[in-house]
Amino acid sequence: MLIVMKSGSTREDVDRVRDVIQGLGYESQALPVAERLAVRVSEYAREPSCELFETLPGVELVLPISHPVRKVGRLARSEDTVLRFGSREVGSGGFTLGAGPCAVENEEQILAVARSVRDAGADMLRGGAYKPRTSPYDFQGLGEEGLKLLALARKETGLPVITEAVDEASVELAEEYADVIQIGARNMQNFALLKRVGRSRRPLLLKRGMSATLEDLLLSAEYLLDAGNPNVILCERGIRSFSDHSRYTLDLSIVPVLKRLTHLPVFVDPSHASGHRSSVAPLARAAMVAGADGVMIEVHPDPSLALCDGPQSLRPEEFAALAASLKSLAPFMAEQRETVP
Amino acid sequence: MLIVMKSGSTREDVDRVRDVIQGLGYESQALPVAERLAVRVSEYAREPSCELFETLPGVELVLPISHPVRKVGRLARSEDTVLRFGSREVGSGGFTLGAGPCAVENEEQILAVARSVRDAGADMLRGGAYKPRTSPYDFQGLGEEGLKLLALARKETGLPVITEAVDEASVELAEEYADVIQIGARNMQNFALLKRVGRSRRPLLLKRGMSATLEDLLLSAEYLLDAGNPNVILCERGIRSFSDHSRYTLDLSIVPVLKRLTHLPVFVDPSHASGHRSSVAPLARAAMVAGADGVMIEVHPDPSLALCDGPQSLRPEEFAALAASLKSLAPFMAEQRETVP
Amino acid sequence: MLIVMKSGSTREDVDRVRDVIQGLGYESQALPVAERLAVRVSEYAREPSCELFETLPGVELVLPISHPVRKVGRLARSEDTVLRFGSREVGSGGFTLGAGPCAVENEEQILAVARSVRDAGADMLRGGAYKPRTSPYDFQGLGEEGLKLLALARKETGLPVITEAVDEASVELAEEYADVIQIGARNMQNFALLKRVGRSRRPLLLKRGMSATLEDLLLSAEYLLDAGNPNVILCERGIRSFSDHSRYTLDLSIVPVLKRLTHLPVFVDPSHASGHRSSVAPLARAAMVAGADGVMIEVHPDPSLALCDGPQSLRPEEFAALAASLKSLAPFMAEQRETVP
Amino acid sequence: MLIVMKSGSTREDVDRVRDVIQGLGYESQALPVAERLAVRVSEYAREPSCELFETLPGVELVLPISHPVRKVGRLARSEDTVLRFGSREVGSGGFTLGAGPCAVENEEQILAVARSVRDAGADMLRGGAYKPRTSPYDFQGLGEEGLKLLALARKETGLPVITEAVDEASVELAEEYADVIQIGARNMQNFALLKRVGRSRRPLLLKRGMSATLEDLLLSAEYLLDAGNPNVILCERGIRSFSDHSRYTLDLSIVPVLKRLTHLPVFVDPSHASGHRSSVAPLARAAMVAGADGVMIEVHPDPSLALCDGPQSLRPEEFAALAASLKSLAPFMAEQRETVP
Repeated sequence: MLIVMKSGSTREDVDRVRDVIQGLGYESQALPVAERLAVRVSEYAREPSCELFETLPGVELVLPISHPVRKVGRLARSEDTVLRFGSREVGSGGFTLGAGPCAVENEEQILAVARSVRDAGADMLRGGAYKPRTSPYDFQGLGEEGLKLLALARKETGLPVITEAVDEASVELAEEYADVIQIGARNMQNFALLKRVGRSRRPLLLKRGMSATLEDLLLSAEYLLDAGNPNVILCERGIRSFSDHSRYTLDLSIVPVLKRLTHLPVFVDPSHASGHRSSVAPLARAAMVAGADGVMIEVHPDPSLALCDGPQSLRPEEFAALAASLKSLAPFMAEQRETVP
Repeated sequence: MLIVMKSGSTREDVDRVRDVIQGLGYESQALPVAERLAVRVSEYAREPSCELFETLPGVELVLPISHPVRKVGRLARSEDTVLRFGSREVGSGGFTLGAGPCAVENEEQILAVARSVRDAGADMLRGGAYKPRTSPYDFQGLGEEGLKLLALARKETGLPVITEAVDEASVELAEEYADVIQIGARNMQNFALLKRVGRSRRPLLLKRGMSATLEDLLLSAEYLLDAGNPNVILCERGIRSFSDHSRYTLDLSIVPVLKRLTHLPVFVDPSHASGHRSSVAPLARAAMVAGADGVMIEVHPDPSLALCDGPQSLRPEEFAALAASLKSLAPFMAEQRETVP
Repeated sequence: MLIVMKSGSTREDVDRVRDVIQGLGYESQALPVAERLAVRVSEYAREPSCELFETLPGVELVLPISHPVRKVGRLARSEDTVLRFGSREVGSGGFTLGAGPCAVENEEQILAVARSVRDAGADMLRGGAYKPRTSPYDFQGLGEEGLKLLALARKETGLPVITEAVDEASVELAEEYADVIQIGARNMQNFALLKRVGRSRRPLLLKRGMSATLEDLLLSAEYLLDAGNPNVILCERGIRSFSDHSRYTLDLSIVPVLKRLTHLPVFVDPSHASGHRSSVAPLARAAMVAGADGVMIEVHPDPSLALCDGPQSLRPEEFAALAASLKSLAPFMAEQRETVP
Repeated sequence: MLIVMKSGSTREDVDRVRDVIQGLGYESQALPVAERLAVRVSEYAREPSCELFETLPGVELVLPISHPVRKVGRLARSEDTVLRFGSREVGSGGFTLGAGPCAVENEEQILAVARSVRDAGADMLRGGAYKPRTSPYDFQGLGEEGLKLLALARKETGLPVITEAVDEASVELAEEYADVIQIGARNMQNFALLKRVGRSRRPLLLKRGMSATLEDLLLSAEYLLDAGNPNVILCERGIRSFSDHSRYTLDLSIVPVLKRLTHLPVFVDPSHASGHRSSVAPLARAAMVAGADGVMIEVHPDPSLALCDGPQSLRPEEFAALAASLKSLAPFMAEQRETVP
């Protein structure tokens, strides 16, 4: 269990929490970083109920986590992790706008999308070359050819490129051609893959599995950091629920929780979550004001012809309108960071 | 099934959709209002798959609804329903800020909260006199005494009052003392209660049940309108999912869907959804930019002493900061309405 | 929190558990009934983590319940509650087979069903006169006329009758005409209704709400017992999940948990849960061997003409085959009770 | 979409269904095998609503599947797939009892468990050498050393061995040492792994992912058959839902659906689903009478010392009682297969 104290909490607050812990028979340790406190629980020990601590003065949040999060938490590192791509930064207070097609289909398509999203103000180009598809009979991606086209699009537009890897072979190729390697929702608990990309020198974007709890997500990220890769972006992309008006249920409330608990940048993918073009812009704006560091948006020159996920892809002009909308919101969020809880 | 065309769709778009419908052997009827189209399906008939229509040009949204929504949909009424309380309006493009304690506890508490939220800029005072509590041994509310205190607070502050009714007797009293009657999530499918408040002259706020689909919610609202009450606000307050970092999972993506499908105002309750004070402000802002017409926020002078839902209640000063934050976002949203999809 | 010791647990086992509790700073009380132990937690106190106790010797189950269950638990009453209707018993080790149509439609229909299910070996006749329907435009039941037809069917067949009540008025009529009053899933947290039927002299069947946790269900039953009615049957009928091959997801694993924790009889409704005729028989058998005290099965003379829930209703001959199947399983279950954990 | 006709359906029934299909503008093809009917839908076409067909006479089940299931469905093969291990068969009408520890820990442990479960009547030994663990700091399995111990246990007891593989390297080793290779729930949509084991000569057990729909599961199995491996067992092991009294929610109602739709054997894992020792036996019995071909049960000589999943593991004597219980149920199920729908 991690008990995160507020930044302005007093020595007295910390002592009170430690007294409660001791009263329950546990050992506690006040971590030196920023007056934050943790209950050190050995790997096999059981921990007390979180609610015991939630209402104590000075306590910001209690993480009901029975497995120790060692490296992704604020305890391990209180300042935000910042990723850098050339002149661009992720996680340093700005907002990163990633965009591109679900799948790279051909040179014409990827170049057209890349130019249009760059012109609209995107910071990163997304595109799948290895597509994890539910059916073996669906389009599985262009493979290395797709990666080459992404590299070409980067050369043309100057946009850093993010693409998904699904196994050893595709990781090696993605390391060669791409700037950021994405681990998809279906592979969030493919621990063999996590161990492999954790040894990569490329930054990573880890999508939340569609049935992953907060703890599951944090521990999958822990695999990455534990394997040596500190440059990890977490990405909410919708969970499975009974609610059937959207493809998945976007769990936006995990954004402020992740921002408090971890030092990693947090992205949101409203395209896969909603599955409907018309909901993408409202949810992208919502992600921004909820505190996300960026969004990933699917864009296709002609969604009705897309080989994958057409109904959720924005047309280039719709993306441009969304990008302008997010840009006009940016000053508001910058101000919020200064003044609001 | 309702197929809602975009406002700018052409005659040709409409004809194309109708051709597909006819090709499937169904009857269609182009509703005169605003070039929108519906498939008229008799009550017991089965309907074709929604996906057949989603990718046709000019189509905004297809509602996979087997039961006819007759009165709450945009087909029945294309302009937004607006509720009026004195000089205040709900649903006409502004943003309504409702606030107050989970439960009315005593005169001092409710007056203190009412004054503080009014001073911070709230538009409406919430407070429970009849509390549906999971346990019979929990505080069940002050009953009529609570309603009298709410009326007193209204007199003191000028704020309209919203409170929950749970049965015939409490509906009658709420009609006497309150401005808006709330039907809680646990009673969303208490159809006897819906029929009763549907006959009330008071405006209603209908909370989404925690396992209600979009269709369930719309049809519960249909009970209200069908019984004669046109003044209904829908309110998303979180659904049950496996995700355990928040009390419920706030399904914010239902907001843009509801705004497109219905003419009713849509509120969001981030307090009950998240269950954690620190997530309330980010989620309230997210609700605003996702297109909600208002939020309901729990505020308590001293959450640690609250008889109900303390951990999710904001302190008065936290609420004031949130209100200021939302106010500074308002111009942005006004501009979005003019320019963005 | 309730820590239920196994029936064969030793004094030493009990003491060990109490030592752990004391070590955590809590008070414990060894209840005299059958060597069971409870941690007495006052209403507003927080409780320790369940996992602390789960692996101690002699512990059968730990209930993670923050609200005190006072009357429905085995602590309050260790022997099983048995309901009696004439010569029939519910909850005393036998298996009760309830059957009938979703809704009473007319005299011919209900008499035909009643005779066929009695001949097949049913113990109870179900039929709805007040139907809580998702849409206001669906058939809402025959009301009092339906109750009269049920009473007629009872007279003809000798079967006790169970029917749903939805409000004050229908409770009063159901008390007059029926043997058991059902509270439906949508009203499981209609606490005003629970308080009312809790004062009834009729036995009750309480269906689990489709988003109710174990604790929610137990506390709704607690409302009934707290209001004075000890004769309550709990009924699992499927919960909402993402899984879309059945109408709801039958949560059969709650059956053994309820049987251990409470003294109340537990029924299962596989018809509403699955929504598909062909899954009803396998799930009814599964309910029996999982330890349920009975099932409720929907039967209709001609499901294709049913005004409600046709696709899940068995035809009379299908019900007769199921009844025979369950009868042949009964000796097995009787033997299991004697010999197996 | 697949429309599966009942085995006793008439020519007239089939024609009626085809008329409806034609009336909707689709092509249909009556498959020659066992009077079953399918709507042939090309890969990218949209399909009509299932409900159109569900109530037609003679129709057993309609599968709402937008992706074509080509090889796992009854259409492709009407007779049941049977796997053979020496003198044992899986899927031919008997019931397979798999048992063993979550993880192989050492020689003494695995031999003790293997002997005890063999003596109790188990048909297969399970044990993990490569453990997909949520946390990188948990015990990850003994690797090849564990596989060698499993092979030793097989030699000692004659039981065929099933173990999980998680990547290319572990697949190769599992092929060498084990009889059946398991793909775990977390890897159900690790398509790279599916393609690899699909090329294996070993039989496979595919666990349902915790957020997998029926369609997701069938299409993952389709990957295996499409890659050339026809010997696949499907295994339900619980899904994620809000319900918190068990570790996962065992979705037992998928068993009869899978048995109707596919020709593959279906197993159930009640241990991982419930997470509680005391629920394992009732749920294993329920799986049997719901029509499963087998169960996988976790057994450990001393669950309190288990390195993994202790609380859900049966002690050897508890497993022996369960095995006896299942054996005494077997004649009942054999009879049911002859006589009951």
